[in-house]
Amino acid sequence: MDKFFSPSAVAVIGASPREGSLGGQIITNLRYGYPGKIYPVNPNHKEIQTLPAYASVAEIPGPVDLAIVIVPAPAVCDALEACGAKGIRRVIIESAGFAETGPEGRALQERCLAVARKQGIRIWGPNCMGLVDVPRKFFFTFMHPNIYKDGLISGRISMVVQSGMLSAGFLADLMSERAVGIAKACSIGNKIDIDECDVLEYLIQDEETDAIALYLESIVRGRRFLMLASRCAKPIVLLKGGKSSAGAKAALSHTSSLAGNARLQDSLLQLAGVTIARDFQQMMEVARALAMIGKTPPRCRTAILTFSGGAGILSCDLLEAQGLQVADLSPSTKEELAKVFPEWLPASNPVDMFPAFALNGAVATYDGAFRAVVKDPKVDVLFLHFFVGLYPNYDRLKLFKELADREGKVLILWVIGRRDALRDFKREAQEASIPAHGELFRAVECLAYASRYAPSRKSPALIGKRPAGG
Amino acid sequence: MDKFFSPSAVAVIGASPREGSLGGQIITNLRYGYPGKIYPVNPNHKEIQTLPAYASVAEIPGPVDLAIVIVPAPAVCDALEACGAKGIRRVIIESAGFAETGPEGRALQERCLAVARKQGIRIWGPNCMGLVDVPRKFFFTFMHPNIYKDGLISGRISMVVQSGMLSAGFLADLMSERAVGIAKACSIGNKIDIDECDVLEYLIQDEETDAIALYLESIVRGRRFLMLASRCAKPIVLLKGGKSSAGAKAALSHTSSLAGNARLQDSLLQLAGVTIARDFQQMMEVARALAMIGKTPPRCRTAILTFSGGAGILSCDLLEAQGLQVADLSPSTKEELAKVFPEWLPASNPVDMFPAFALNGAVATYDGAFRAVVKDPKVDVLFLHFFVGLYPNYDRLKLFKELADREGKVLILWVIGRRDALRDFKREAQEASIPAHGELFRAVECLAYASRYAPSRKSPALIGKRPAGG
Repeated sequence: MDKFFSPSAVAVIGASPREGSLGGQIITNLRYGYPGKIYPVNPNHKEIQTLPAYASVAEIPGPVDLAIVIVPAPAVCDALEACGAKGIRRVIIESAGFAETGPEGRALQERCLAVARKQGIRIWGPNCMGLVDVPRKFFFTFMHPNIYKDGLISGRISMVVQSGMLSAGFLADLMSERAVGIAKACSIGNKIDIDECDVLEYLIQDEETDAIALYLESIVRGRRFLMLASRCAKPIVLLKGGKSSAGAKAALSHTSSLAGNARLQDSLLQLAGVTIARDFQQMMEVARALAMIGKTPPRCRTAILTFSGGAGILSCDLLEAQGLQVADLSPSTKEELAKVFPEWLPASNPVDMFPAFALNGAVATYDGAFRAVVKDPKVDVLFLHFFVGLYPNYDRLKLFKELADREGKVLILWVIGRRDALRDFKREAQEASIPAHGELFRAVECLAYASRYAPSRKSPALIGKRPAGG
Repeated sequence: MDKFFSPSAVAVIGASPREGSLGGQIITNLRYGYPGKIYPVNPNHKEIQTLPAYASVAEIPGPVDLAIVIVPAPAVCDALEACGAKGIRRVIIESAGFAETGPEGRALQERCLAVARKQGIRIWGPNCMGLVDVPRKFFFTFMHPNIYKDGLISGRISMVVQSGMLSAGFLADLMSERAVGIAKACSIGNKIDIDECDVLEYLIQDEETDAIALYLESIVRGRRFLMLASRCAKPIVLLKGGKSSAGAKAALSHTSSLAGNARLQDSLLQLAGVTIARDFQQMMEVARALAMIGKTPPRCRTAILTFSGGAGILSCDLLEAQGLQVADLSPSTKEELAKVFPEWLPASNPVDMFPAFALNGAVATYDGAFRAVVKDPKVDVLFLHFFVGLYPNYDRLKLFKELADREGKVLILWVIGRRDALRDFKREAQEASIPAHGELFRAVECLAYASRYAPSRKSPALIGKRPAGG
């Protein structure tokens, strides 16, 4: 799999000089951040985006690790033959027009697979958007270059999606609108060869990945998937499409997937330690929380530090509804809180800091309250509420995270506010490795997922290709 | 109540020239959009923000409809006496330090109420942030002026919140980050006189309000509330804080509220046609959807028009999970879709438009698909998916809404994408009166709420002060 993720030279079969064309966008995207050799292949052009273009794969002067194919479906078999002859053993087929279109396309797909097997080629796709490595700025995909116009937000969550447009749209939404950082995004399409198990296995070993989120319409090798999941020390969050009868029918024509029995699958997967999600963004927020928090202590005794009495009360309601515990603060903590708080304010959980803002200012109040509560032996989790954009921003997230880590406490944030301040704050939280959520329910739900999460005790080194180490 | 919402002159008792002070911010906020007379009252200054200031209420030259009080709690009784003497009959007390602080504060609150009764004054508050009228730019509140820096988004949903900081933070979040438009926001605090029933009654009659969202920690006059709700022809969405034991305890010290039996309350309220929410933003999205959609046809047969096969499949799953129906398209609709679609693509629901984009362009595809599906007699709801920010934006929302209205069909949107494009798109949707949601689950959930919503058939004119008309 390494040659898919870290090739030293890439050929683009079907590269195009036409702006807005898929074959043009792949070149633009490669040039954005990929430092290796890029070989556009197109018989009609000598040069594409200032790069020398080649009439055929055979004419490429140097060795090539990976080919990205975007020629029309009927021409893909020939392209694979040419790749084989050139010694290219990894091919991402991004073209559509295969099994998802009916029997003819399915036959075409089978022929391509046969060629690949004969030539010793591993295929990623077809009918997919390829892969993206956000920290390294590798875009092996035809998605629109506007996707990185707002800047990328790197993170440590990798995702596998069996849907093309979704991965592009979704990436832009996550990084631009929601400030959720991504490591690798893998769009696997019809997965005639490389499937979710192969990618999962790679991501389990990947040092840049802390959690894995998958949107799948089918799980082809169920037993292998369960085995990988049950031995994986990283959180795996799965959103399965096609659970309903109408959804299953649609999945067949989307990526040619047979959906299977949803309830049975969910139960087996949960036994294997997989967390089941219900929506795209929710899947990513849950994965991020699990990556950053891991497993919470069993009772999850939560202290709420808030700027809003109402939000504190609702947090209590939501925690109890999820079976989590509202912490009962120790007397010593209450005494310390009393020093920061106005005399009339009872120091109890939820800690409503707003009345103390006028007395000490917001920063000193947050500081004082946090330092008092983080040491409390009767507190496992600190649920901090922030409002950003009205007052100067608060820049202590890293310090808070250090203090919490030192005490072995979990931190989770709810943050609302004005747009730009909100994005900055969420980026800061991302860097400090604290999950920040925009809705109370979502934050509490993520805590509940963390409390139910059962990580494997086995090291990821025990599975996959690398030698066992621990 | 009109004098609270539309006073012709306002006195601010406790106005301050100090920047960042609450008494200063009230003046700044009034000057932002309120066109009536503003009288700052402060014995130590001759002028505040270029307005002549008065040493006492008695010295104000003209008549005053409304006083906003922000002096320390112990000075509030005297302020009320002065208001009475001056003939001011409406007072918003924004100062804190009353029943929420314990027995002494409670006694003080009682004394204030006695003075008000004696003087014939109606009190709004205390311990509240007053009220905001977004379309008219009235800010009768001490909230930070940064709240309107990003521009306001007017809408037709009014809210009543029993929490101060929440209403400010929440308003900024809604209008700045989420592009949810607001009509009136009413923060009623300890509600010693004017309570949720009074405000609800006003909003039921208010021509600028299509739906009412309430965050309450207690319902004081339960019977009256139920009566108003059961006769109200507008959707009412309620989020009740303090349902859990920890939450109820916290509510007592927040706004001095006794929470009551949550389940019993919910059942009664639902019988009266109230929709029960579980979180702040969710409450607003549900209220907006109910305001814009009203009640959906019973079977809610939904056609999904999507740019992402994966999102189409998941929409089916979510619809079925909520008990809603994925529409079975008529043969004539399929024939029409076939004209826009590539030959190999089966024209079925969900309508996956992405493969047709390359053929016809996104705009023509959306147009063709929409026009085909909107006429289908077997479709009640069109669930449109948009991705914005990669391609040029789509500007046909108003046209789509007209076509849907003409056919008696419901429209609802799921939209993801790049930040700025997303905000523009959501504003456009708001103007076209189409609910736009950022998560599939939320969109489908709102449809489900609409399918269960039972609007009263009685006209709002039957209750309240106005004479019966219909």
